[in-house]
Amino acid sequence: MTVAYEVTPVGAQVLDRLANVSGARGAAELRSRLANLGRWVRADLVDFEAELATLSRGARVVQSAAHHLLDLRGKHLRPMCVVLASKFGEGFTPRARGLAVAVELVHTATLLHDDVVDVAERRRGQPTAAVVYGNAASIFAGDWLLVAALRRIGAAKVDGLLDRMLAVIDEMILAESLQLERRGRIVADRDEYFRIVEGKTAALFRWAMLAGARCAGLDEACEIALERFGVHLGIAFQAVDDELDFTGFAGTEVNAETGKDPLVDLREGKMTYPLIVALEREPSLHARIEAVLADEAPQAAELAAIAAAVRATGALAATRELAEEHVRHALEALAPLPAGAARDSLETVALASLERQS
Amino acid sequence: MTVAYEVTPVGAQVLDRLANVSGARGAAELRSRLANLGRWVRADLVDFEAELATLSRGARVVQSAAHHLLDLRGKHLRPMCVVLASKFGEGFTPRARGLAVAVELVHTATLLHDDVVDVAERRRGQPTAAVVYGNAASIFAGDWLLVAALRRIGAAKVDGLLDRMLAVIDEMILAESLQLERRGRIVADRDEYFRIVEGKTAALFRWAMLAGARCAGLDEACEIALERFGVHLGIAFQAVDDELDFTGFAGTEVNAETGKDPLVDLREGKMTYPLIVALEREPSLHARIEAVLADEAPQAAELAAIAAAVRATGALAATRELAEEHVRHALEALAPLPAGAARDSLETVALASLERQS
Repeated sequence: MTVAYEVTPVGAQVLDRLANVSGARGAAELRSRLANLGRWVRADLVDFEAELATLSRGARVVQSAAHHLLDLRGKHLRPMCVVLASKFGEGFTPRARGLAVAVELVHTATLLHDDVVDVAERRRGQPTAAVVYGNAASIFAGDWLLVAALRRIGAAKVDGLLDRMLAVIDEMILAESLQLERRGRIVADRDEYFRIVEGKTAALFRWAMLAGARCAGLDEACEIALERFGVHLGIAFQAVDDELDFTGFAGTEVNAETGKDPLVDLREGKMTYPLIVALEREPSLHARIEAVLADEAPQAAELAAIAAAVRATGALAATRELAEEHVRHALEALAPLPAGAARDSLETVALASLERQS
Repeated sequence: MTVAYEVTPVGAQVLDRLANVSGARGAAELRSRLANLGRWVRADLVDFEAELATLSRGARVVQSAAHHLLDLRGKHLRPMCVVLASKFGEGFTPRARGLAVAVELVHTATLLHDDVVDVAERRRGQPTAAVVYGNAASIFAGDWLLVAALRRIGAAKVDGLLDRMLAVIDEMILAESLQLERRGRIVADRDEYFRIVEGKTAALFRWAMLAGARCAGLDEACEIALERFGVHLGIAFQAVDDELDFTGFAGTEVNAETGKDPLVDLREGKMTYPLIVALEREPSLHARIEAVLADEAPQAAELAAIAAAVRATGALAATRELAEEHVRHALEALAPLPAGAARDSLETVALASLERQS
């Protein structure tokens, strides 16, 4: 008898971690749902990773820079959305696999450009590709992955998906541009916050759900339902991300959970949801945040004090409420879909998104 | 009677300038061919510019950065390739116009990323978008234009053209990457030079010819002929570009003709064809060029001395021979095409490419 050695795919590891967190919190039902989900999608996630591994590793520095970030592997949440939506139909077919890889490549491409734009030093606990290979390589690597993604979507030949992805990328860029223009402008503008989040985060989750749905051959009402689910999951995801910028913070070290520098959003002058709430409730924070942003090398103590002041306003609880509200909307969106394992799995993902620690 | 005021389109201005240069050189036949060509395509180039003007001018900084460069208008050579190839068939239809705009947008997108990568200060006689709007805006503006171009190609619905453009962009990025890796490495490697030129310059000219050909409904042999023409025109174009880095040089001012900083390729450590030839013929240049590249702020006098030493090897004449050789290949490529005004016009463009001063 041979023993097959198989590495647990990243997506399944994420589900395992969420199950453990849920278990530790006493959420036994969610733990059990996550364990079931992990078993249900594991083989599909193995297939996804095998497909992702087909991306060429050539001799060019742009390829090294792209693989540097891909090899640090994120959470593979967007591909998981493609997997789960596809399971309403014939499942995670080779066509769906190509689309799942494409959505991960687009996501990675945006990170490669963002890290140049943000002059970010760390990502996923390691130096960014821009630090290791230079800004030029990181820019071209983003371009390269974007094109690789679009070619895979083209090759899948699923009606309308390439057009839709191009529209999504357009939305993402305009949202990134708005965020760039507002950087360092300390104004509590909720409308603008949601415009940015919908463009830069929710739009790609939405596409991932659409891609899976269209592979599954669902009718239009179900497709729209899954897209709505994707939008709300994306907003909830971003709200939790915003919250994580303020948690797990201990001095100036890297956040052990997220692998990002602590308070990086705050220091980059990005208006996260906790900051917006805190400014609404405690306008005196305005001057303090402006001062810390004007400082080239702000003191860790002052950053920590601002983070504490933000927490003291109850802004993190408000951010959690925002995430919970959008998880509720995501669950409501599922109503038109046939009951069964596929719908259960999306419910589980939505509920578990609130448990995320990284 | 109303007098219609109409601005001469950029492409026609380029043809006029080339006609004047040819006339001044005593090339009366070429002057007359260029004047005819200008009249023949003027209305199409007006249509092209009208179509280009439909690109949205929104409130976002990425849009400002993109329009900054587009408004400085290049030579619109790649769109002219689409126009001329389309005239073998039903002409410059609305579909062909969309493709001509797309090829100009892809070209502009690559310049926006190149100017960040090269830390370039001037382009088309003006500060680069990266200088005016920042690197972040220039990166996202390149992304935005790339997506806008691909959407237009998708909308044209001409079989295979979107796939081919994605393959071309992939080639361009890998060539840019190779050039980036070799930057500052002073080695006379002709094979590598041609790999880079084919990827970063010739591939897009080739696509422009293909796009026009496919709109014209030509058979496969004619399509291949036009693509070959595009490749050789692209190489000739790059050879002349390389030559221009060494001409029109007077001290450290901006080159009045090209609008670029003088000797910018040399100072960026890019192995242009004149440098390769000069190094083959005069190996002692190696140490001098390395020294000037190692210098953060090289003396204008030393740059000028190196340029003179390159010229003294006869490298510029050799570069001109390279351009002439590829113009010959371009003309030969036209053989399978039906004789007539369309073929004449391409011959004229190929011959005139050698007269370019900017």
